[in-house]
Amino acid sequence: MSSYNFSKPYLITRSVIPENQEMPVSFVEADRIKHELFYRRNHFPYPSLSSSSSWLPVNGALQRPTLFSMEDLSRFPSKTLKVALECAGNKRSFFEPKVFGEQWEKGAISQGYWTGVPLRDLLQYCGISSQAKEVVIEGYDEGKRPDTDQVHPFKRSLPFDKALHPDTLVAFQFNGEPLPYKHGQPLRLIVPQWYAMASVKWIKQITVTESSFEGPFQAIDYIYYPNKESNEGAFPVTTLNVNSTIQQPVNRDTLDTGEHTIKGIAWTGEGTITEVEISTNGGESWAPVLLERRPSAYEWVSWTWQWPAYEKGEYTIMTRARDSAGRVQPMEAFWNRKGYGYNAVEQIEVKVQ
Amino acid sequence: MSSYNFSKPYLITRSVIPENQEMPVSFVEADRIKHELFYRRNHFPYPSLSSSSSWLPVNGALQRPTLFSMEDLSRFPSKTLKVALECAGNKRSFFEPKVFGEQWEKGAISQGYWTGVPLRDLLQYCGISSQAKEVVIEGYDEGKRPDTDQVHPFKRSLPFDKALHPDTLVAFQFNGEPLPYKHGQPLRLIVPQWYAMASVKWIKQITVTESSFEGPFQAIDYIYYPNKESNEGAFPVTTLNVNSTIQQPVNRDTLDTGEHTIKGIAWTGEGTITEVEISTNGGESWAPVLLERRPSAYEWVSWTWQWPAYEKGEYTIMTRARDSAGRVQPMEAFWNRKGYGYNAVEQIEVKVQ
Repeated sequence: MSSYNFSKPYLITRSVIPENQEMPVSFVEADRIKHELFYRRNHFPYPSLSSSSSWLPVNGALQRPTLFSMEDLSRFPSKTLKVALECAGNKRSFFEPKVFGEQWEKGAISQGYWTGVPLRDLLQYCGISSQAKEVVIEGYDEGKRPDTDQVHPFKRSLPFDKALHPDTLVAFQFNGEPLPYKHGQPLRLIVPQWYAMASVKWIKQITVTESSFEGPFQAIDYIYYPNKESNEGAFPVTTLNVNSTIQQPVNRDTLDTGEHTIKGIAWTGEGTITEVEISTNGGESWAPVLLERRPSAYEWVSWTWQWPAYEKGEYTIMTRARDSAGRVQPMEAFWNRKGYGYNAVEQIEVKVQ
Repeated sequence: MSSYNFSKPYLITRSVIPENQEMPVSFVEADRIKHELFYRRNHFPYPSLSSSSSWLPVNGALQRPTLFSMEDLSRFPSKTLKVALECAGNKRSFFEPKVFGEQWEKGAISQGYWTGVPLRDLLQYCGISSQAKEVVIEGYDEGKRPDTDQVHPFKRSLPFDKALHPDTLVAFQFNGEPLPYKHGQPLRLIVPQWYAMASVKWIKQITVTESSFEGPFQAIDYIYYPNKESNEGAFPVTTLNVNSTIQQPVNRDTLDTGEHTIKGIAWTGEGTITEVEISTNGGESWAPVLLERRPSAYEWVSWTWQWPAYEKGEYTIMTRARDSAGRVQPMEAFWNRKGYGYNAVEQIEVKVQ
């Protein structure tokens, strides 16, 4: 019977249609997340793909608009990058006052190895025009939004310079395998350092424009609205905030007296993580934790700290990450009506008994 | 590719070793939960069973202590009951002030059909002594508790009259199949109407005693401690409180204007559910919801309510169940240090836009 007594973590279901499930961040070991535990974030039901889905039109303000086959793409030099994707709404459930939307806890983030062709190479092949302003990426997924009666595809634009960044990829592999269907098969965009709404799945077409794109996933959603009642001061969601997460122990755990390993991850969208500090006394004093390695720019870095917890009592454990751009996690998150970019100092309570 | 675009809910992981996972209550349709989605609550790693595990010793203060084989048990008349099992810590995460322990949300409850022999029949076969006071049920699961260095088995007692209740079963089937390993194979106790710590899994032996049993899962855990700092006023956890849960919509959902189905479940440990009321204005006014059927005593009953939500705005939806014993869910839960028996009026916030 021993084969039955194995236990494993699962995705945490926020909604089934469309499918929104978060990674069980406290229980993943690897820093290369297998696709079964990679968080899933969808605006619509999964699209139905057909044979035409394996052709990629790159069109608009280009000298030679081109319809690429998968074979065409395979002739471009490809690149493999380890990139963490984080939903802009990760940790939304921690905002105070509470906001509406998917109540993500700490698992709307995952990472792995993405292989693809730099979007820049495709655009250059098609002949870049000096009038180009943005690149619009349209996915095959579409549907009705709760706030309108029209059917919209999931469609987003990138500023032209971000589209030309050599690490912005049209990806066709994840962890060395063809992209999993739920993660954008056959092609998805990978935009390192930006929240993952930019990394459009199931790419249907890529269009260069001379004006600003204003679709609802650009002009209504993925905007920071600092005010509850007005749109004053609104600005778009782009780069990941500097952030950290405690994986173990979990919030409200009870521990026995002794030494315990506190472990977690830290990441940023600007530069690299340079330091993670920990406090076990609610922020009165801080100590640096051990980073597993010198992280590259696009991945999270794992960290651990050995905690000599020999005294019984209740403890507030906090972590605070700092990046090479000088950014540090704030004590309080920047509140915004749609609940994006939460990155307050991570905090859990544990009881040693 | 359409076979890949199916999405399904999973258990929600609270810990892996020991395994504690809750049912995704918002996303289960059936009122007969399949064992893969039945919540799992363990105090220890899964036990290793051997061939001797299929023998059941019933001993102690009895005229003819007996070692029953599975075949012996199969000669007793069996009974199939639809019983909801609820962890005493279900909804613990909603207590304010917060308490320590597994942070269960609303899914530490599941139900299905249990088949077994009434414990009473086995005790009567063994010859009941007039000195009998309690029946101690010991599971094969054991380990170190965080608050002691000793190894303890999971072991609990029942008052003799509860043990003699004709619906207290030594169960060997769930939903018509042999008990799943994780739910107590080969034998588990089923104690209808009590919180599920009483429904001991992997029964190792059953012992009739003439005194009160005082193991840690009886005398330390599964006690209501009304005070944070002292044990004053402590009393044992037994019968399920009257309770209800909203399955859909989920908390902090955004809905479009129109008619929406609000659905959920309600249950009690005394009598049957007689009424569930709903409020969409934060408790100012209440309307009765439609119960799917006249429930039996041991199961939850499903309910639905059609909500004409034509006006945009933010709404606080509440439900309140009442049972035939006259009990009704309170506006505030009875706070207790270990966080058992939470049954405050269920409350979610939604935004209609």
